[in-house]
Amino acid sequence: MPSIVDIIAKKRDAQELSKEDVEAFVAMVTRGTAQDCQIGAMLMAIYLNDMTEEETTNLTRACVNSGEVLEWSKSWPLVDKHSTGGVGDKVSIPMAPALAACGLKVPMVSGRGLDFTGGTLDKLESITGFKVALSKEEMEAALIAAGCFIAGQTEKLVPADRELYKRRDVTGTVGSDALVVASIISKKVAAGASALVMDVKVGRAAVFKSEERAVQVSKKLIGTANKLGLKTKAVLTAMDVPIGNSVGNALEIAESIECLRGGGPEDLRTLVLTLSGVLLHMHGVAETVEEGQQQVADALSSGKGLEKFKEMLECQGVDSAVAHEVCFGDMWKVLPKAQFTTDLPVDQDGFVGDLDALEIARVCRELGAGRSRADQELDLSVGVTLLKSVGDQVKRGEHWLRVHHSKQELDQALKKRLQSCVTTIAAKPLLKSRIIKIME
Amino acid sequence: MPSIVDIIAKKRDAQELSKEDVEAFVAMVTRGTAQDCQIGAMLMAIYLNDMTEEETTNLTRACVNSGEVLEWSKSWPLVDKHSTGGVGDKVSIPMAPALAACGLKVPMVSGRGLDFTGGTLDKLESITGFKVALSKEEMEAALIAAGCFIAGQTEKLVPADRELYKRRDVTGTVGSDALVVASIISKKVAAGASALVMDVKVGRAAVFKSEERAVQVSKKLIGTANKLGLKTKAVLTAMDVPIGNSVGNALEIAESIECLRGGGPEDLRTLVLTLSGVLLHMHGVAETVEEGQQQVADALSSGKGLEKFKEMLECQGVDSAVAHEVCFGDMWKVLPKAQFTTDLPVDQDGFVGDLDALEIARVCRELGAGRSRADQELDLSVGVTLLKSVGDQVKRGEHWLRVHHSKQELDQALKKRLQSCVTTIAAKPLLKSRIIKIME
Repeated sequence: MPSIVDIIAKKRDAQELSKEDVEAFVAMVTRGTAQDCQIGAMLMAIYLNDMTEEETTNLTRACVNSGEVLEWSKSWPLVDKHSTGGVGDKVSIPMAPALAACGLKVPMVSGRGLDFTGGTLDKLESITGFKVALSKEEMEAALIAAGCFIAGQTEKLVPADRELYKRRDVTGTVGSDALVVASIISKKVAAGASALVMDVKVGRAAVFKSEERAVQVSKKLIGTANKLGLKTKAVLTAMDVPIGNSVGNALEIAESIECLRGGGPEDLRTLVLTLSGVLLHMHGVAETVEEGQQQVADALSSGKGLEKFKEMLECQGVDSAVAHEVCFGDMWKVLPKAQFTTDLPVDQDGFVGDLDALEIARVCRELGAGRSRADQELDLSVGVTLLKSVGDQVKRGEHWLRVHHSKQELDQALKKRLQSCVTTIAAKPLLKSRIIKIME
Repeated sequence: MPSIVDIIAKKRDAQELSKEDVEAFVAMVTRGTAQDCQIGAMLMAIYLNDMTEEETTNLTRACVNSGEVLEWSKSWPLVDKHSTGGVGDKVSIPMAPALAACGLKVPMVSGRGLDFTGGTLDKLESITGFKVALSKEEMEAALIAAGCFIAGQTEKLVPADRELYKRRDVTGTVGSDALVVASIISKKVAAGASALVMDVKVGRAAVFKSEERAVQVSKKLIGTANKLGLKTKAVLTAMDVPIGNSVGNALEIAESIECLRGGGPEDLRTLVLTLSGVLLHMHGVAETVEEGQQQVADALSSGKGLEKFKEMLECQGVDSAVAHEVCFGDMWKVLPKAQFTTDLPVDQDGFVGDLDALEIARVCRELGAGRSRADQELDLSVGVTLLKSVGDQVKRGEHWLRVHHSKQELDQALKKRLQSCVTTIAAKPLLKSRIIKIME
């Protein structure tokens, strides 16, 4: 086995690492025989000198093999979805049960947010009793009964990625394409799906600010995933204004349920239909993406998706009566509600021209909806509701935003920052679609 | 104070770090608040994106200020010498007392070798009772009585460099110019000299293989040292064949004493005279480098240097009778002697054309003279003596090398490797001088 110093020196000198080098590095990281400073140095060398597709694929495979790989019945049409992260991004929550209603199996391993707003798991924990830590047996039972689950990463799944990830965060190496690809794809391969759709966000509130960069990274994600036998397509979607009308954990669950009830904001619905359509087409359940979209639209309007959601909640520990209330009754009897709300007015007549998703998210984090440290507890009740969307006509004094907060007085500085997030313009702006393009 | 992640990201993006950034980084390293992986990532970012002279100077100054700075009487002409490391390099040992005999004060803080052969401190420990760990008071007493000391780095001296150094070794970042400069110069500044001569080795057994690289790094060393108020010159010297005739710890002490007795190998004497001449000239004790060389030559031939060496030994814990025996009696009554010797013959008539210093050093390490791990104990008695030098005429069967070993049988593989180190050629080769040039 090559020594770790030699492997680091090779990458430092921008040489291509062999499969053996990459496997040795990952093994040493997993077993804890690599020194912490060596991992840091290697991450930086990878960041600065990059990796070829071959190296990235070897890194991804080595991460998969560092732990357990979930295996499901070979006859199941197993699919998964991943998003590179956006503000108000609750797409996975209605999408997993909607796909299950269309006959697919969705073993979704998700993360917590170490970001402006909570992750999918945080949001789901707004529902009393919801359990994110599932055993392999519980996962399997959920796939059989509900057709889907949304669970946290287990200790046994891709331990190498966990070790690398926690160091990327503190060493400024999160943005390396090779490391991004290995981290995302290894987790998805280990979760056992055979088809994957990636929601790659583009825009000022996204990791990738330009379409060019998103295309570049998408190609790498697709290339590596395909080499590991996971059929993958990417949908590039715009991430400048928040998805839907709600940002905040319980608030986003509410909006997800609205979507599963056949309603909810149009852009959220569009994302669910498009991403689902791609997967249904990939598995041949639909002959075209459009046909797949129609199938999902039917699952939403018929309530079959909602039924699957209720089953998933029950499989993941939610009391049957609670699950029923959330899905078919008054969800706010179950979801945590902030004690106070403050509505903010626009200060001139015109049209809503822009809403700054990133700054809205930052304020939501300060309200308690997101974390700045991994061990931070969230306030699941707080957040904001957009009362107006881009393109809406508004009059001076009319409310555009409702802030849900836990302290009686909304902090003046936060209020000011929120007011800076809305831009009012004289003429109705052109509305852009969320969907930029589909890549394969 | 800027966050460490921001500082790492700045260097990662090849931006120039401010004085504040560099000081914050060094402070976090010294206090232990920087995570190990962060130090590793930063070292690699510095290695790959380098540092400007300004940044390097700030890093060096911050390292100096991370601990104690030794202060000596302002009226003393304080000098120091540093070598980038060579095979058979025992120059410091005769040089420090010879300079003291010429009226200079030499507070020399040296290191152990984590290399093919032992460092200066290891060599000196061949003399029974020699103590490398001196208190500030003991150092001062030695400077007053003997005019020099050669001691180990104390815990309080440049702790930041110690923290960085141990990680450079394992992260493949030893070779960064900025880190090399900061490490060497910070230790020299903290040791309190006001003039420094650097012996920068060039050649196949040196860190710098080409003169071009040695010049490049020398300029940086001189530039940074001068900015920190340490007047510095560099002497570039050839490092292809071993210095003198001996490689091994006690063997090199013996050769150093021969030099102090006015004899010893010519190339060792030339190095001592040249490097000393530069320092005597820098301090104005000699009007020219040549005049300085003459003063040192006198100190060697008169035995005044040897007298200072004896005083230094006594100040550093060696019993007076032992010191006397080593200097003026039979040194081999004191120095550890290997139990066995084996002489190796040349296999054809001709002239010695080349001696491979690097491979000789590697074999000496395997004999026990050097370390491959920091905690390894050395066998101070083992090593080799060159019975022939480059240019000597030899006949087939004549011995060219004496191996001093501790096991009765000299390992056949080592013997074979040693035999590959001598090249015999038909015509007498041109002899090159050790001294390439003096830089200021």
